[in-house]
Amino acid sequence: MATAGKVIKCKAAVAWEPDKPVVMEEIEVAPPQANEVRIKIVATSVCHTDLYHLFERMNKDSFPTVLGHEAAGIVESVGPGVTEFQPGDKVIPLFLSQCKECSLCKNPKTNQCEVAWTRINQEMMASVESRFTCKGKKVLQFMGTSTFSEYTVINQVAVAKIDPAAPLDKVCLLGCGICTGYGAAVNTAKVEPGSTCAVFGLGAVGLAAVMGCKNAGAKRIIAVDTNPDKFEKAKVFGATEFVNPKDHDKPIHEVVTDMTNGGVDFSLECVGNVEVMRSTLLSSAQGWGVSVIVGWTDMHDVAIRPVQLIAGRTWKGSLFGGFKSKDGVPKMVKAYMEKKLKLDEFITHNMTLDQVNDAIELLKDSKCIRTVLSVSPQ
Amino acid sequence: MATAGKVIKCKAAVAWEPDKPVVMEEIEVAPPQANEVRIKIVATSVCHTDLYHLFERMNKDSFPTVLGHEAAGIVESVGPGVTEFQPGDKVIPLFLSQCKECSLCKNPKTNQCEVAWTRINQEMMASVESRFTCKGKKVLQFMGTSTFSEYTVINQVAVAKIDPAAPLDKVCLLGCGICTGYGAAVNTAKVEPGSTCAVFGLGAVGLAAVMGCKNAGAKRIIAVDTNPDKFEKAKVFGATEFVNPKDHDKPIHEVVTDMTNGGVDFSLECVGNVEVMRSTLLSSAQGWGVSVIVGWTDMHDVAIRPVQLIAGRTWKGSLFGGFKSKDGVPKMVKAYMEKKLKLDEFITHNMTLDQVNDAIELLKDSKCIRTVLSVSPQ
Repeated sequence: MATAGKVIKCKAAVAWEPDKPVVMEEIEVAPPQANEVRIKIVATSVCHTDLYHLFERMNKDSFPTVLGHEAAGIVESVGPGVTEFQPGDKVIPLFLSQCKECSLCKNPKTNQCEVAWTRINQEMMASVESRFTCKGKKVLQFMGTSTFSEYTVINQVAVAKIDPAAPLDKVCLLGCGICTGYGAAVNTAKVEPGSTCAVFGLGAVGLAAVMGCKNAGAKRIIAVDTNPDKFEKAKVFGATEFVNPKDHDKPIHEVVTDMTNGGVDFSLECVGNVEVMRSTLLSSAQGWGVSVIVGWTDMHDVAIRPVQLIAGRTWKGSLFGGFKSKDGVPKMVKAYMEKKLKLDEFITHNMTLDQVNDAIELLKDSKCIRTVLSVSPQ
Repeated sequence: MATAGKVIKCKAAVAWEPDKPVVMEEIEVAPPQANEVRIKIVATSVCHTDLYHLFERMNKDSFPTVLGHEAAGIVESVGPGVTEFQPGDKVIPLFLSQCKECSLCKNPKTNQCEVAWTRINQEMMASVESRFTCKGKKVLQFMGTSTFSEYTVINQVAVAKIDPAAPLDKVCLLGCGICTGYGAAVNTAKVEPGSTCAVFGLGAVGLAAVMGCKNAGAKRIIAVDTNPDKFEKAKVFGATEFVNPKDHDKPIHEVVTDMTNGGVDFSLECVGNVEVMRSTLLSSAQGWGVSVIVGWTDMHDVAIRPVQLIAGRTWKGSLFGGFKSKDGVPKMVKAYMEKKLKLDEFITHNMTLDQVNDAIELLKDSKCIRTVLSVSPQ
C-alpha cells in the first residue's frame, strides 16, 4: 500500500472525556511497530462495553481514547516480525489476545492470555501502547483495539485472519458480543442436548446465548427480559418461552423454578447486573444447575447465601464465550458462511461512523440490538 | 430381639433448649413404623453441625431435640415393609437420604434426594416424624437421625448397610465429616493428578479434604489454618505446605496466589465462614480455578465481585461430598477396611455418651479433631 511506513491521517471518533458524546476528529495513526498490524476498519458495531467505559467507568486517566472493539477490516501494512499477516488480509481485531506462547494460552482449560490480562487488569482498559495522536495529544487505545477509527494498529497476537469471502459488515459482530453469548452457552455452560435453559437479558449477547443453547440441542429455552418486544427476536434465535419479570409479583427465579419443576439445567446472565446475576443463579436447579455470568460489571459485589451453592449448583463466569480468540473467531466466521450461525438477524440498524453518537444513544436506550457502522469502503 | 415391637426406654442426650448443655435423660423410643429401622447406636462422634444447631440456630421450634448424626450402630428391629435390613445388620445412619426412587436419586448429576430436601428445607432441620418422647413430651429428631441416643428410629432410605467386620467406633466418622471433606475434593472439585490444591480450615472436614486431594494425586496441597498446631496432623493426611493467615499482613488469598504463581487449581473452604469462602475462591487460579464451599453456614451472604468469576473461575458447593449416600458410605467403609482411607488418625478423644457435653466443649474450643462417644456395647 502506498501508505505503508507512513503516518496515516484519518477520521476517528475520539472520546475526549467520560459522559460526553464522542467527537469525530482527524487523528494521526503511526505505522505499525514490531509485531503490530495496521488495519483499515471496514465495519464496526457498538457494544455495551463501549458504553460502559464511556458512562460508568469514571477513571479520567483513561481518556482521551478511541472506543470500539467489535469490528472487521483489512490489513493495510505490517510491522517488523509479522509473518502471519499480509496487506489485504481480512481480519477481526481481538480485545482478548491469544499469543499462543504464554502458560495461559498453552492451558486448554482457559481462553485467557497473559498479554490480554496485563491489559485488562489495568484500571484503564486502554493500552498506553497507542499509535494514535490527535491535535498533538496522545489518544489511548480502548481494549487494545479502538475500532471507531478508519485505521487502527493492533498487536498481531490480537488479530484473527478470516475467510476472505466473509462480508465484513456482518462478521464484525463476531469481535465481541456474539462470540461472548454463544460461547458462554456452548463452551462455558456446556449446554446439553434435551436440557432446559434460561437466558436473562435479550440484548445481542443474550440472543447469541439463546442461539448457543439452541445449537447445543436445548429443548426448552426460557428468555427473560423486561421488554416484551424482545421476545419475537428471541424466537428467531430459538427461545421457546418468554418471561417478563414485570408480569409477576414474585421473584423471577421463583417463576422460572415453578415453570421448570425446580429450576433449569443451565442459566445465563447476559445483563451485567448483580441482582440479575443472583436471580439467574437461583433459577438453576439445586442439585445440578449450572449458572454462568456473562454480563459485565465490576462496580458492585454480587451476594449469595452459601447454601445456594452447597445445594449443588455450579457458578461460573465467561469471558469472550470461552473461545481462545485467534482459534475461535475464524471458526465462528466459517460457521456463519456455512449458515450454521445467524448474524444478520442481530443487525437492526446500519449507519456510518459519523453517526456513532446516534448508535451509542440507540444502544443506551435499548432501541437496537446491534448497529453496524460502515467505516471505510472494502 | 426381645425388644422388637415394644417401646424401648434408654438413655439419650436431650437438647431441651438452644445454648444450654444437653441433658442425659431416659427417653422412650417407639417401635419402627412402616419403612423404618430401629437402630442401637454403638458409637457416635460430634460434628460441627450439631454445635451449629445448638448454638447458632435460634429457632426455638426445633427444640427439644436429640442431636447427633455421625454414628454407627446395629439394627435392633425393622418396621413393616423393610426388606433391606435385618436385626443384627451393621449400619450407618444417613442425614442425607437416598430413596433411589425420586427424580433426584435417578439423576447421576446430584447426590440429593427429595426425601432429604424436604427435611433440610424445613427451617427446623429436625423431623417432626419423631419416635422419641421424654417426660411426656415429644422430642424431635435432628437431621432425621439423632444419634446421641442408645436407640433411634430412622427411615430405611436414610440407613446404609456396611461390612459386618467394620469397627463401628471408627467408621462412625463416615456418617458425615469425612465423607463430606473427602468427597468434596474427589467428587465435587474433581481434583486432578499433578494439581495444586489449597484447603482452608483443618478440622475433620478439612483434613478429610486434604486426604481427598492426596488420594486424587495432587502434587501440592497447601493447608491453611490460624492454628499452627494443626499442621502436623495435616501432614499425616498429605498436606505439603502450611499457611497461617496470622503470619501475614496481606490477604491470605494473595499469599496463596504468590506461592502458586497465580493461584491453585482447586481450593476448598472447610470452615463455614463467608469471609473465608471469598478468600478461598480468590486463591484459585483465574482462568481455570475450581473452588468448592464445603463448610456450612446459612446465616450470612457471601459477596464477590462478578469479575472474579468472569475471570474464569468455577464456584461450587458440596453437600456430603457429592456422595449418593447409601451407595457411597459402604464404599468408603470398604476403602477404610482396605487401608486406602485413614480414619483412626481423625480421632483425638474417646469418651462415653455421658460425656457428650465435654465433647461438645472440646469441639467448640477447637481442642479436638473428632471425639468418638461410646454409646452402647456392640
